[in-house]
Amino acid sequence: MIARGGNAFLASAQAPASAAVTPDPDAVLAARTRAHRFAVTPVPLAALKRWQLTDASLTHETGRFFSIDGVAVETSFGTTPRWSQPIIQQPEIGILGFLAQQIGGVMHLLAQAKMEPGNRTMVQFSPTVQATPSNYRRVHGGRSTPYLEYFLEGARGTVLVDQLQSEQGTRYYRKRNRNMIVQVPDDERVPLGDDFVWLTLAQLHVLLAAGDRVNMNGRTVLSCVPYDGNVAEIATADPFRRAVLESRIDPRADDDALQGALTWLTDRRAALDLDTRRIRLADLEHCICDEQSIRHVTGKFFQIIGVEVAAESREVGAWMQPMMEPTREGVIAFLCQRRAGVLEVLVQARAEAGFIDRVELGPTILFSPGNYDRPEDLPPFADHLKGPASWVKMRAPQSEDGGRFYHDETLHQLIEVPEDETVTLPANYRWMSLRLLGRLMRRGYHVAIEARSLLACLG
Amino acid sequence: MIARGGNAFLASAQAPASAAVTPDPDAVLAARTRAHRFAVTPVPLAALKRWQLTDASLTHETGRFFSIDGVAVETSFGTTPRWSQPIIQQPEIGILGFLAQQIGGVMHLLAQAKMEPGNRTMVQFSPTVQATPSNYRRVHGGRSTPYLEYFLEGARGTVLVDQLQSEQGTRYYRKRNRNMIVQVPDDERVPLGDDFVWLTLAQLHVLLAAGDRVNMNGRTVLSCVPYDGNVAEIATADPFRRAVLESRIDPRADDDALQGALTWLTDRRAALDLDTRRIRLADLEHCICDEQSIRHVTGKFFQIIGVEVAAESREVGAWMQPMMEPTREGVIAFLCQRRAGVLEVLVQARAEAGFIDRVELGPTILFSPGNYDRPEDLPPFADHLKGPASWVKMRAPQSEDGGRFYHDETLHQLIEVPEDETVTLPANYRWMSLRLLGRLMRRGYHVAIEARSLLACLG
Repeated sequence: MIARGGNAFLASAQAPASAAVTPDPDAVLAARTRAHRFAVTPVPLAALKRWQLTDASLTHETGRFFSIDGVAVETSFGTTPRWSQPIIQQPEIGILGFLAQQIGGVMHLLAQAKMEPGNRTMVQFSPTVQATPSNYRRVHGGRSTPYLEYFLEGARGTVLVDQLQSEQGTRYYRKRNRNMIVQVPDDERVPLGDDFVWLTLAQLHVLLAAGDRVNMNGRTVLSCVPYDGNVAEIATADPFRRAVLESRIDPRADDDALQGALTWLTDRRAALDLDTRRIRLADLEHCICDEQSIRHVTGKFFQIIGVEVAAESREVGAWMQPMMEPTREGVIAFLCQRRAGVLEVLVQARAEAGFIDRVELGPTILFSPGNYDRPEDLPPFADHLKGPASWVKMRAPQSEDGGRFYHDETLHQLIEVPEDETVTLPANYRWMSLRLLGRLMRRGYHVAIEARSLLACLG
Repeated sequence: MIARGGNAFLASAQAPASAAVTPDPDAVLAARTRAHRFAVTPVPLAALKRWQLTDASLTHETGRFFSIDGVAVETSFGTTPRWSQPIIQQPEIGILGFLAQQIGGVMHLLAQAKMEPGNRTMVQFSPTVQATPSNYRRVHGGRSTPYLEYFLEGARGTVLVDQLQSEQGTRYYRKRNRNMIVQVPDDERVPLGDDFVWLTLAQLHVLLAAGDRVNMNGRTVLSCVPYDGNVAEIATADPFRRAVLESRIDPRADDDALQGALTWLTDRRAALDLDTRRIRLADLEHCICDEQSIRHVTGKFFQIIGVEVAAESREVGAWMQPMMEPTREGVIAFLCQRRAGVLEVLVQARAEAGFIDRVELGPTILFSPGNYDRPEDLPPFADHLKGPASWVKMRAPQSEDGGRFYHDETLHQLIEVPEDETVTLPANYRWMSLRLLGRLMRRGYHVAIEARSLLACLG
């Protein structure tokens, strides 16, 4: 729907790095890491200052930021028909925004080298702004958020992207963020703060392919970039990269194709049952809530722990907060295949407890192998992860939201199935070109964050 | 987004009635009313067979159909910051579908003259199909739903409309229905069941303007009709009717205008706080739950009562069910104005407890005057209801969903403010052409049912 900027992004995705504009991104991350000291230390929940753990929930004394509640779930999706779990409540709508500007005729995005306490590689590139109303209304008394004014009513730049998108439905209850890209005129002078650098999409894609260099918020906004143009504008010699860019501008993804995909998704929403009910932490089944942590009796899934963070460079100097720590490593993957000449990815319609509208499109594969005791319970296509190495087109670890999740890395993979391989699909799986998936995504709450993260990494 | 059919609907909206295709619609309603006898009698909740009233909720013994739960609400919208209320839970996604066919070159929709127990005028025109999965999977052991196969995967016709849309957010908790229009080929023979008639949009608009002849489900699907074409195709001599049709195809409602409206709506979603929590009926404040009914201590708002229904012509012969009965009459209205030559309506961004995503666009005015003790609490623009009679372009009573609401009529009004009148807008109000509002609506969960109902009545 956003016509403006589409061609500019296709060009930016193929632009050679300009040393005049951007210093070496890895050097920027390294310098930022050296320049600011910080320490992140796990602590018992009971030690968290200003946080209160009751039978009902774990909340900040102001009632703001976020809380940990319980949720009871019943669903016809997957192999577990009913369970209860802790879940993060964060009703505010945060802004995740990249400032964009054409520099030397090439579209650049302004990234921040930002420390987040949960990430193993603590300093990564984030959007220009990542802020909730609690942040930018300064509930915690910190410093103001730089560049925020470009994203707010009144002084806002030209909107290229503005989409409400969900976050992890397995961990957040109906959380969504506002993904924005806002462009300023070519001749406007934008002051360049410490830790901020202008990057082309091509540079960002190199960082994404390397892994652990672009944070989750950066990846979700990048997934929303609107590509437009025609094949004559694709100059890359790499055949797979060319196939990705061609799929991003696939002319077959027209209004009829979009309506067909929407109707298929609505069929899935109608067919899959999901009922959720917020409950007290004390009413969670198979769950231990004590002074130390909130955890499953089996040690599986994830636990809620406390952390103490001391960092000079955040908006405030030091703080304590709960974080969610997965106890098993996660894997996500798209199967892709050239179909009638166009690269398509295999999406899965998934019901998750925290989704705004029950079902969204996730990647082909999304699971934590360590949570499965029996091979027969593994989700469809899990065996494709053991396919030939030549099928793997991308494989990179990426951090989940380092503001909420502690040491949570998900291995991102893209697996290309040969053209002549027949893939049998369950009813809730469907092939889509990247352009079609992008059009669905722009409607909001249609494409889950794991699929969006993979989309961003595809380059 | 749905290009197909747009011109055909513009033509259908101006098509003279063809006696060869359709008998007099009022005669059809009258005949249907005479042919089938039915009786609807209020009964105490305790008398409802197969329904169970507990401290938690009022539910059917099968756990299906719907239930009455409690919800606690906190919001920054409106003048009441926090309250609790009974609310209808109905997680299933029902199908509301019109079958469409070109007959004699004119697009017709297949309407059913259908009895619904809650409507004062019990027999009204409904979509071809209105059915929840509980209905069509025959949980109540009734007869099958005619024409349903045209709307289901496998034998489905050409999809002209397929949109998930919300229902009343003040009464339903996150309920949505699937609004569909499905077209069959011109030469396909569609068997015509008793009580079914083919109607043009022009005929439906006459019925809508008269009031109480097209049920709520009919109105919501009709609001989704995609209009397309150019002004040369508008032949009507009535200047107001011409202005409506011109606004429906307003060429200024392009992608940029849509992005602007979406960004404005997202600003409202970010600015308005709403937190809801499902609670037990016994925990409702200021509420009496007894064998008779569930009601507010003041007698305001609405009450939950029981009804006994005996009707030969429904899927089952007789049944009992709870219904929601408003205790005050409701009024909804759009202010409209010609702005730069194009008729626009004034929409209000509203937060309602049951909305899927917190805020949707409602009509300019939506309230029940009898619930207000003090004039200073009246919502903005309420005084426009007392304006000159010449400003009133449409005024018709319409029934709310007669399957859930008992004797619930809302007065629908369209009030045209003169071109030279200056209207001062609060931040959550905005003028939109009908085409722009329609484009927002097609995204789902953006336009509330009261606004959609008015849109349908606009013709």
